[in-house]
This record gives sequence, C-alpha cells and structure tokens, in this order.
Amino acid sequence: MFMDNDVEEGNLGPYADRPRVFPSMRSKAHTPLIFRILMGINVRVLLVFLLLGLGAIFYVGAKTSPIIVFVFSICIMSFLFSIYLTKWVLAKDEGPPEMVQISDAIRDGAEGFFRTQYGTISKMALLLALVILGIYLFRSTTPQQEASGIGRSTSAYITVAAFLLGAICSGIAGYVGMWVSVRANVRVSSAARRSAREALQIAVRAGGFSAMVVVGMAVIGVAILYATFYVWLGVDLPGSMKVTDLPLLLVGYGFGASFVALFAQLGGGIYTKAADVGADLVGKVEQGIPEDDPRNPAVIADLVGDNVGDCAARGADLFESIAAEIISAMILGGTMAQRCKIEDPSGFILFPLVVHSFDLVVSSVGILSIRGTRDSGSKSPIEDPMAILQKGYSITIVLAVLTFGLSTRWLLYTERAPSAWFNFALCGLVGIITAYAFVWITQYYTDYKHEPVRTLALASSTGHGTNIIAGVSLGLESTALPVLVISVAIISAFWLGHTSGLVDENGNPTGGLFGTAVATMGMLSTAAYVLTMDMFGPIADNAGGIVEMSQQPESVREITDLLDAVGNTTKATTKGFAIGSAALASFLLFSAYMDEVAAFAQEPFKQVDIAIPEVFVGGLLGSMLIFLFSAWACAAVGRTAQEVVNEVRRQFIERPGIMDYKEKPDYSRCVAIVATASLREMIKPGALAILSPIIVGLLFRILGSYTGHPLLGAKVVAAMLMFGTVSGILMALFLNTSGGAWDNAKKYIETGALGGKGSDCHKAAITGDTVGDPFKDTAGPSLHVLIKMLATITLVMAPIFL
Amino acid sequence: MFMDNDVEEGNLGPYADRPRVFPSMRSKAHTPLIFRILMGINVRVLLVFLLLGLGAIFYVGAKTSPIIVFVFSICIMSFLFSIYLTKWVLAKDEGPPEMVQISDAIRDGAEGFFRTQYGTISKMALLLALVILGIYLFRSTTPQQEASGIGRSTSAYITVAAFLLGAICSGIAGYVGMWVSVRANVRVSSAARRSAREALQIAVRAGGFSAMVVVGMAVIGVAILYATFYVWLGVDLPGSMKVTDLPLLLVGYGFGASFVALFAQLGGGIYTKAADVGADLVGKVEQGIPEDDPRNPAVIADLVGDNVGDCAARGADLFESIAAEIISAMILGGTMAQRCKIEDPSGFILFPLVVHSFDLVVSSVGILSIRGTRDSGSKSPIEDPMAILQKGYSITIVLAVLTFGLSTRWLLYTERAPSAWFNFALCGLVGIITAYAFVWITQYYTDYKHEPVRTLALASSTGHGTNIIAGVSLGLESTALPVLVISVAIISAFWLGHTSGLVDENGNPTGGLFGTAVATMGMLSTAAYVLTMDMFGPIADNAGGIVEMSQQPESVREITDLLDAVGNTTKATTKGFAIGSAALASFLLFSAYMDEVAAFAQEPFKQVDIAIPEVFVGGLLGSMLIFLFSAWACAAVGRTAQEVVNEVRRQFIERPGIMDYKEKPDYSRCVAIVATASLREMIKPGALAILSPIIVGLLFRILGSYTGHPLLGAKVVAAMLMFGTVSGILMALFLNTSGGAWDNAKKYIETGALGGKGSDCHKAAITGDTVGDPFKDTAGPSLHVLIKMLATITLVMAPIFL
Repeated sequence: MFMDNDVEEGNLGPYADRPRVFPSMRSKAHTPLIFRILMGINVRVLLVFLLLGLGAIFYVGAKTSPIIVFVFSICIMSFLFSIYLTKWVLAKDEGPPEMVQISDAIRDGAEGFFRTQYGTISKMALLLALVILGIYLFRSTTPQQEASGIGRSTSAYITVAAFLLGAICSGIAGYVGMWVSVRANVRVSSAARRSAREALQIAVRAGGFSAMVVVGMAVIGVAILYATFYVWLGVDLPGSMKVTDLPLLLVGYGFGASFVALFAQLGGGIYTKAADVGADLVGKVEQGIPEDDPRNPAVIADLVGDNVGDCAARGADLFESIAAEIISAMILGGTMAQRCKIEDPSGFILFPLVVHSFDLVVSSVGILSIRGTRDSGSKSPIEDPMAILQKGYSITIVLAVLTFGLSTRWLLYTERAPSAWFNFALCGLVGIITAYAFVWITQYYTDYKHEPVRTLALASSTGHGTNIIAGVSLGLESTALPVLVISVAIISAFWLGHTSGLVDENGNPTGGLFGTAVATMGMLSTAAYVLTMDMFGPIADNAGGIVEMSQQPESVREITDLLDAVGNTTKATTKGFAIGSAALASFLLFSAYMDEVAAFAQEPFKQVDIAIPEVFVGGLLGSMLIFLFSAWACAAVGRTAQEVVNEVRRQFIERPGIMDYKEKPDYSRCVAIVATASLREMIKPGALAILSPIIVGLLFRILGSYTGHPLLGAKVVAAMLMFGTVSGILMALFLNTSGGAWDNAKKYIETGALGGKGSDCHKAAITGDTVGDPFKDTAGPSLHVLIKMLATITLVMAPIFL
Repeated sequence: MFMDNDVEEGNLGPYADRPRVFPSMRSKAHTPLIFRILMGINVRVLLVFLLLGLGAIFYVGAKTSPIIVFVFSICIMSFLFSIYLTKWVLAKDEGPPEMVQISDAIRDGAEGFFRTQYGTISKMALLLALVILGIYLFRSTTPQQEASGIGRSTSAYITVAAFLLGAICSGIAGYVGMWVSVRANVRVSSAARRSAREALQIAVRAGGFSAMVVVGMAVIGVAILYATFYVWLGVDLPGSMKVTDLPLLLVGYGFGASFVALFAQLGGGIYTKAADVGADLVGKVEQGIPEDDPRNPAVIADLVGDNVGDCAARGADLFESIAAEIISAMILGGTMAQRCKIEDPSGFILFPLVVHSFDLVVSSVGILSIRGTRDSGSKSPIEDPMAILQKGYSITIVLAVLTFGLSTRWLLYTERAPSAWFNFALCGLVGIITAYAFVWITQYYTDYKHEPVRTLALASSTGHGTNIIAGVSLGLESTALPVLVISVAIISAFWLGHTSGLVDENGNPTGGLFGTAVATMGMLSTAAYVLTMDMFGPIADNAGGIVEMSQQPESVREITDLLDAVGNTTKATTKGFAIGSAALASFLLFSAYMDEVAAFAQEPFKQVDIAIPEVFVGGLLGSMLIFLFSAWACAAVGRTAQEVVNEVRRQFIERPGIMDYKEKPDYSRCVAIVATASLREMIKPGALAILSPIIVGLLFRILGSYTGHPLLGAKVVAAMLMFGTVSGILMALFLNTSGGAWDNAKKYIETGALGGKGSDCHKAAITGDTVGDPFKDTAGPSLHVLIKMLATITLVMAPIFL
C-alpha cells in the first residue's frame, strides 16, 4: 500500500530505486468446492476412503485382467511421483514480496477465469449429455447389442456416463496444468536470481507434474471404465457381450474429453492472445516500451492468459489426444482380434494402456535426468537449455523404443502369427521416427537458426507487407514435409501390419489398420515427456514476465529470456506432434465410424464414393467448416484485441503519468475485458463445430429418404469428416508454423540482427508476431481438438445419421 | 526530350507548370512475326485465302451438322462485331503527347514481356507435347478405339494436335486482351478529360473486343476440331467411331489451354503484383507520395503489370474456363445420349457450343446498351458507373435466360422424355442464379458499402496487426456462403437432371450429371459480358495511372478514380464467377476421368474409396499441393517485391532530386527486374502443378502393382484431384476475397473515413492492401487455372496411371 501512495504522491527516485508499481489485486483466496469438501473431512477418514477406493479399483481390475492391474499400479505410482514433484516445486522459495504480489495477481486472474469458463462449459456439457441420452434412448440397437443383452437404456446410460467422466477428467487435466503453473512461475523467477540450471529444473518438474497427472488420468480413466463395464456387463460370459465389442462403449469418454478441450482451448486461446496482441500493439509498437513492462495496463491480462490459454488448454488438449488415441486403438485391436479369431484378445485390446503406462515410466526417468547442478564434464560457460531438454528427450526415446518392443512381444504375440509382434514393433518404430521427424521439421521452419525464419526476418526489412506475405508463404509451404512424412508413415505402418501374418477366416490379411494404430501409439509413446516440455514454455514465459514486472537486474532477465525462447520452440514442436497424432487418430476413428454405421445399418459400409454429388458436397462442407471455424477463432481474437487496444490507449491518455511511473495503470479492467470477451466469443466457433456435422448428417438423411438413397446421411458425414480432417491438418500446420516463425523472426531481430530492437524492421516483425498470435495459439490448437472432436462426435452420433 | 533537359538543368516552375517528368523509353515498335508475315502479303491474296479458309470451314461444318454451321456463323459475326469495336476504339483520340509517351512506354514494356514470356511458355508446351506424344504412342488402347479403327498413332496425333491448338489459341486470347488494353488505356484517359460517360464507353468497348475474341475463339476452336475429326474419322459411318465418343478426343484442347493459362497467370500475376507491392511499400508507406506518382521509379512497371497480369492472363484464364467447360459438357452429353440411346445425340453434344454462341449475341447487346451519352431521363448530376454496367448486365441476363430456354427446347428435346428439356432449362436457370448469387456474395464481402469491409477498415485503426488478422478472418469466413450456394446448385441441378425422365436401358435415371453440366453452362451463359466487365478494370486502372503520371487536373483524376474503383469491384466479382465455374467444371471432368479409367481398365470404376490408406494419402497430397502452390506463388511475389523495394530505395538515395522532380527516376531498371524475376519465379509453382499428379499417379501405380492392388494409381490420383479441387476452391475464395476486401478497406479510408489518407489507420490499411495483392492477383487466379488444369491433366494422362 505504501508503494501506491508513493506513486500517487510522486515520491519517485531515479529509475533503479523506483518502487515497483503494482496494485494490490489479490482478492480472497479461492479453493475449488471439491478441495474445500475434501479438506473439510478428517484426514484419517479421507485416507480410509482412498484405500477403500483403491481396493475396489484393484479388485475390479483383478477380475478383468492382470494387465489392468499392471496399468493401475503404474498409474498410481506415477501419481505418487507427481505428488513428489509438486512437493519439491512448492518447497522452493517464492522470492521477494514484489514477485509474490505479481504472482498472486496472476493466480487470481487465472483461477477466476477458469471458474467462470468451466462453469459455462459444464452447463453446456450437461445439456449435451441430455441430448445424447435422448438420442440413445430412442435410437435403434444393433444385432450385436441385442445378442449381448445390452438394451437401449443401458447403452444410453453407459454412453452418457462415459461422456461425463471424460468431460470431468478433461476439466481436471486443465485445472491441474494451471494450478501448478501459477505456483511454479514465481518460484522459477526466484530461482533465476540464483542459477539458470535451477530455474530450468523447477520449470521442468512443474511441467512434469501436470504431464504425469494428465497422461496418468487419461490412462486410468479408460482402464477404470473398461474394467467396470467388464465386470458389470459380465463380458465374455456365455450370452453376454464379447470383450472385443467393449471398447466401442468407451467412445463417449473420448467425446466428453474433446468437447471440454475444444471450449477450453477456444476460450483460453482467445483470452491469452487478445491480451497479448492488445498489449503488444500499443505497448511495443506505439509506445515503444518492452514486453511485460509494468507500465502496460494489459500486462497482467497477458500473463494470466499464458496460464489459462497455454497451460490449462494444452493440458485438456493432450489429455483428449491420448484418450482418443487409446480408445480408437482399442476399438481397432478388438475388431482385428475378433476377425482373426485370436484366442485371448485382451492383449490386443489393452495394448494401448500398457504403452502409455510405460510412457509414464520412461518419461519420469527423462524428467529426473534433468538435474539441478551442472554435469562436471560440461565446460562451456553458458548452457543451452534446449540441449538439456533434448538430452532428456533422447533418453526418454531410447527407453521408449525398448519398452515398446517389450510390450509388443508381451501382448501382441499370438501363435496364429508368430512374427506379427515384430512387425508391430516396427510399426511402433515408424511412429517414433515420425514423431522425431515432426519435431525436426517444426524446428527447421520455426527456429531462427535455420534458413526459413532468417528469410522471414529479412523480408521484414522491406516493410510490414513483405513480412506478412513471407510469413504466410512460409506457413503454407511448411505443410508439405509433414504431409509427406505422415503419408509415408500411414502407408508403411499399414503395410507392416498388413503383412504381419494375421489373417481372417477367409485368409485375407487384416492387420493393416491396427498397424497404423500401433504407429500412432509409437508416436505418442513419449507423450508425458513431450507434454512436460510443452508446459515448460508458459511457465518460463510467466517467470520472465514476473522478473520483468518486478524489475530484476539484467542478468536475471537474461536467464528467463533464454528459457522463454526455448519454451517457444518446445511449444511449436509439441503442436507438430499434436497434429501428427490427430491425423493418425482421426484416420483410425474414421474406420471405427464405418464399422459402427455398418453395424447399425446391418449391411456392409466399406466405401464412401466421392463421385456422388451429395458426397462431394459433404466434402466441400467439411473443408468449409475448417475455414469458417478458423475465421471465427481468429476474428474473435482480433475483435477482443481491438477492445484491449482501445482500453490501453484510453488509459495512457487519461493517466499520462503511467509512462513516468507516476500513475498506476488499471490492470483489472483489461483482465475483465478479455475474460468477458473470450467467454462470449468461444461460443460461436464451438457451436459451429458441434452442430454442423449433426445438422449436415440429419439433413442428408432426410434428403436421402426422400430420394430413395439409403445411408446418404452417413456417407455425406463420412466425406465431411474426411475432407474436414485433411483440410484441418493442413490449416493447423499452416497456422501453427507461420505463427511460430513470425514469433521467432521477431526474436531473431531482437538479438540485434537487421537493425535490432526499435528499428523499422523490428516494428514490421512485431506486426507479424501479433498476426501469428491468434494463428498459433488460438485457431491452430483449436483445430487439433476440432479434428478429433469431429471424429468422436460422428462416432457417437452415428445412429441418427441413418 | 527538351523536357528531360529542363529537368536535368533544374528549370522548373511552380508545381502545376512543371514539365511532365518522363523518359523516352520507347524502343522500336514491335509487331509479332505472324502479323508481319500477314502484312507482307498482298491484301487481295489475303482476302482470297481468308475466303477459302472460311469456305473450307463451312464445308466441313455442313458435312457435320447444321448446328455447327449455325455456331460458325455466329462466331464469324461476333468476330466482325469485335473488329467494329476495335475500329471504334482506335478511332478515338490519344490525347496530348505526354499521355501518348506514357502509353507508349507501357505498351513497350507489356509487349516486350509478353514476347519473352510466351517464348518460354511455347518451349515448355512443345516439350510437353513431345511427352504426350510419347505416352500416347506407347500406351494401350481401349476396345472402343480398336473397334472404331483409331490406332495408337492416330489417337496420339489427335491429342497432341488438340493440345497445341489449345495452347496457341490460349496464347492468342492472352495477346488480344493485352493488345487492346495497351491501346485503349490512353484513349480512356484522353476521353476522361471530356466526359466520364465517354471514358466508360471506350473502356467497355475495348473490354468487349477482347471478350468477343476470347469467347468466340474458344467456341470456334472446339467447333472446328469437332467438325474436322468428324469428317476425317468418318464418324457414325459403319465400323467407325460413334459420335458420342468424339468429344473425348477434344480433351487435349482443354489441357493445352489450361497449360498456357497457368503459366500466363503465374508469370503475369507475379509481374504485376511484385511491381505494385514494391511501388506501394516505398512510395506510399515510406515516402508518402500518391499511387502512380511519376516520381516513383516502379510506377511504369506497375502499369505494365496491369496489362500483362490482368488483361493477358485473365483472357487466357477465361478462355480456358470456357473451353474446359464446353468440352466436359460435350463429353457428358455424349455419354448420356449413348446410355439413353437417344436417336440423334448431336443436339446433346453440341448444346454447349450453341449456348456460348447465344452468349456472344446477348453479350453484344449488353455491350452496345452502354451508350456514350446520358439517357435524357436521368436527372442525377453524377452517375454511378457500376449502375450503368449492372444495367447492361441485367439486360444480358434477361436475354440469356430467354435464349437458354430456346436452346434447350431446340437441342435437348427428345421424344424419349418429352419434358426433359424443361428440366434442363431449369438447370440452366439454377446456373444463372448461382452466378448472380456469387456476384452478390463477392460484392457483399469486398465492397465498402457493406459491413465486412467497414469492420476491416475499423480494425486498421488499431494497427497493422489487427488489420491483417481481420482481413484473414474475413477471407476465411467468406468461403462459407459460396460453398453453400455451390452445394445447393450441384445437388438441385443434379436432381433436376435425374428426374428429367431420361433413363438408360435398365430404366435407371441417367440425366443427373448432365443436369449439373447444364447448370455450369447457365452460369457461364453471360461469360462474354462478364469478361468485358473484368477487362474494363485494368484498362480503367491504367487510364488512371496515365492521368496521374501526366498530371492532369483534379477533375480528370476524379473520373478515372471512380472508374478504377468500379473496376476493382468488377474484377473481384469475375473471380467469384471463375471459381464457381471451375468448381462445377472440375466436378464434371472428374466424372469424365472415372469413365476414361473404366474404358482403359475395361472394368467398372465407379467408386473412390477414401477409407483405403493410400487413397486417403492421395487426398492429403492433393490438398497439400494447393497449399504448397499458393505458398510458392505468394513467396515469388514477396521475393520480387523485395528486390523492387531495394531498387526503389536505392534510386531515392542515389538520386535525391527525384522527390523534387529535379532528377528522373530510372523506370526501366524496375521493369527489367520484375520481368526477369517473374519469368524465373513462374517455373517452380507451374512445374509443381504439372508434375505432381503425374508423379503421384506413377508412384502409386508401381506400389499397387507390387502389392497386388490394381487401379491403385488411378484411385489415388482421383482422390488427389477431388481433395485438391475442394481445397483449391476454398483457398482461392479465401485469397481473392481477403485481397479484394483489403484493397477496398484502404479505398474506404481514402474517402476520408477513420482519419483518411496519411493517417496511421491508412498506413495499416496499405499494409493490408499489399498483403492482399499477391493473394488476389497471383495465387488466387492461378488456383482457378490450377484446379481445371489438374482435371484436364489427369484426364489426358489417365492411361499411364494404370
């Protein structure tokens, strides 16, 4: 308080001695309801409940399969490991009070927005759950379902329960990501005053905590659902459902996860980038003050945005990726095991859960390999944090290759095709190599060590216009290599699976699609470590903001700037990774959709003929959906950023003392503006994504029934899904890469190249950066989620299209 | 010359009295070789040859069908009409010598570039002709061909001859467009000193001239080829080819046209926009001098670009659209007539030629309806040129509806289905309404009378970044309505055709696809008038440039500015029109491709199954091709513009007197830079477009033969074509609309809104305009051509994919 008074009375010394201008924004501490209830209970009672719950889970698991017990054990161990990581991070000091004050303001803003946002999302999720319930209660059932005694109502409750569980878990995944990041940021800033290595380690371990929780929860959620349904429905008993049909019941879980992830990503993405663009356009371009300067009224909103946009949303996004990929692989594994009449199909079905259990183990090793002290061997005075992270990644990958090979031998060995497991191990290797190639390609196009970003920076020297043209071209061009890689991966994994020796009753090879599924798992077999690197980015970014705002010495800022730059690269690479897996997962879910339609229609549904006009139109509409969705996502950021710009300009005019630290900017107004606007703006694109496949499917179903064309609705939706997926992959690659490249071209110029900070070239580069912001952090990542959501929504809604 | 001396000696009076700074750039007059040969011949000899040629044409026509004679007569009448239009335009005065001098410099630059560019293109075309010859000499033949006695070599020579004729006609179409525009521009400027109405009339009649020639040549070219093959191959005689198979031989013509159009559009588009962006970035943004100011060293290059980019390239583009659409509709008409066993199929086959003959007639009426003097009834002091053009368009459309109805009754009446012609007339109406809807939607998104561009202009007030974000969002959003319109058009035309009563031997309705084809013809049934409006744009733009450079009084500039603004809108609407027809034509050519593959494979080829991994990969590659092509086209402009910026900056530094009119800028260096660069840069994207479908098809053919998957190559190419078409339509819509909107947002601000010229808002809008330039005038229109070229190349190359 005394500081505010000083400021208002103008008692300011020379720059370095000036008080840190910062308001006391901290409202009452907020603890979510569920935590409050938990904390209200006696610890012993809680412990008893926890043990009982664990016991029940293990009991059900043991009744299902020893593999499930193995998965449960690993997940619980990784939760314990994540608790260790949090304790370790929270034990670090929070630094001087001015840092704590800033951090508190960020935490308040982030938690406040999270509360409101998830309140809205949960209402929508409940509404959708009711709709699904209605559809499933009145839909027809498949012969398989009737044979296994699952009635309409059972199937409806199962789907809705899975949907809600997926939605809740996705929400928790988001919350956990944000919870740790708003606590770790200040500890990283504080540690940066001592050593770069320690700051890096704190950020990595904080990221590791949420990665462990997110991946662990995706795995244990699916495993619990599977085991519960297995025991409840008496699967594999005579007259009951076959185990190979069980995974299809889990689809609701994936849809719930993607539903929440979509709105989380949209809302968070709009929030963070509107604040960022608004802050940069006035602060950096018009006023020429540095990034995260305390005089900028939008700076707190920007820092809050990093947490709600990057941490919370990316947690939900990756959770959803892993859940969707596990479920689609389980479905394909089940279908294939049934076709090949494999004696014990549970190995094929549960394989993805085991892969991700090992993922938790090897990623833990990778995280622990990043030490707080320097290796004695290292001689260089400045360490490259990227090199340290990549060393950890290499360790993780080597271990992942080993454990993947082990898992295939353990679970995919069958006497019907003794060498099949080896083919599938090679599929996994294809996936791992694909992931590596994606990371490399993204780095090539977004890192300023390489040609493309340098050319982009050079284009900035001839003005804003050439900078934008060059960035757009770079982004469009960068779609080519990933598409080639994904093409090779799909085809080679398919053929490895196809030639694995697994054949159906008629002797036709059937392992192709499962091979692609195994490659997807290989790609995601280091997901926890990749997510750790991704979470590292926003934490480092926030720490940098806190350091800047609390006006630490230059040396401290240098350390956080370095971490921030590395964070940008890791964020970009994770996005490449997310798209690659989305592409593969969608292709798998598409097959599952075809099977599902065939089951309902009780006739083969193997081909989607794009030469039929309606089907071609479906494809047009699917691609158009991607363009329109991206348009609305970008426009939302643009509109909100304009509001922020006007507010920041207004504050600079009405409070001329801000620039001299004589007046305090009103941070909270900017926070309020972006929070309100992003909640409002996330609805339109989100509703578009969910409603359009449903509307198109119903419309063409009706048209088909009038024109005597059965299955027309299902076919048109299939084309819509396929064209939408392809366009979505390309559009997301374009948006992410161009955004990342613009950001780093600016950073390259800030290192002093081409005139350095403050030059006209730098201004043009900042324009590019602001354009790239909604591309790479709002529309791009929302498209990853959209692609998978399209696949899950069509699968869940399949019965109403025919 | 004396003026140059004055300038160099600094003998300059006050601004208004200053001499018009302009160099004598005119080199020796150039006349193309063919013209020189023709002019060398005695006029009487020439006349005799001409009459002999005409006689031969009519003789062959008469031996083919009376419909062909009708088409020939109309085409020749329209050529005579176009000669009348040229004579009328050329009879107008060229204005004062300073205008003539500028116009001469533009003409030299344009003709010089055209010569070099078409030299390169013709070499490539010859090379490709040899490749096609080789492929056709060694390919297998279809049973139909063998039955009709067409051997391998005949079929090879036919295809290559058609290809070369198409390429030559396309080249002439481009040349004609440019020839008239470099002559009309100065006459429009001169007339603008007298009356706006007269200037408008000259520009319209000049545009009308090239429109008549372009459309007439497309029609007569196809008609001559058809009649020649008919007579030469003895079609419909016993043991010969059936007339319904004849149209497939014309595909080479479409491919030749699209091949030349692609490179013409790429080279011209890069030329015009590199010069424009370069001139604007230094002139307008850095130096703050107006558009087309004589002090800008890149201004002549910019004006030359309008002619080689907009006039020559658009002429080739529209020529190619009409040729492709006529041929695809003829193929479908033939296929349908054969399936339905219609007694005289020639009506169905020749229908498109008749539609376009009537197009020539009704468009002539529309062009003539634009008078040089004001209607006595009109009272308003200032006329809106857009209203005059639209009145002409309305007259043309009303007449087109009537003649279209007539043509359907004349040619599509068959006793097998007496009401079929009426259904097809309705299909035509669907097409005309679609064209109208496209024009309306494009205007809504690009005209500053409407909400979207005003929102975009408002976004400029908060900076360069928000302007770009808003423009990108606007462009992405603008894809939605056209896609919905095209979807409704495809489905409704298909169902109108399907229910027309035409059935095959088994009683299945077969008229669906032909219905879509008729809708496409309906859409293009006013093509000549639309092309006139399109050509009007660059002529008005050039006239404005000449007025500005010769420093005419403000009142003259106001008139040309008004015409220029209208030209921008008509240019944007023509692009919407071109995309709509490209979408429909590609869908038709896709069916033709499926039929062709089936004929070669001698097995049904009805379905392209996107659930097969390789086919999905083909789709991915097709969409990726669009992104990569757009990237390279935009990057080419960006790179060349950077060269121009550096050159212009260098001149301003080395010749500080330029800004005070004391030194003469070196215009020719900028002309040389863009000419060299655009020739170099057009190769890479062009080669990509041509080679990638061939490489993908061959690669998967080989893969298919190893893995025992017949037709894999053909299927993958089909998916590539289909996904490429869909992505191409959306990308082109996005690029064209966002470019047009940015341009007009800038123009809106220049009317004084939001701070007007010179404000920060205006600067941000100029950035948007420069970004939009390569979007709307290089990548976008090249994509129209690319889409159709993909369809024709796969059709011509079909035999090598299996």
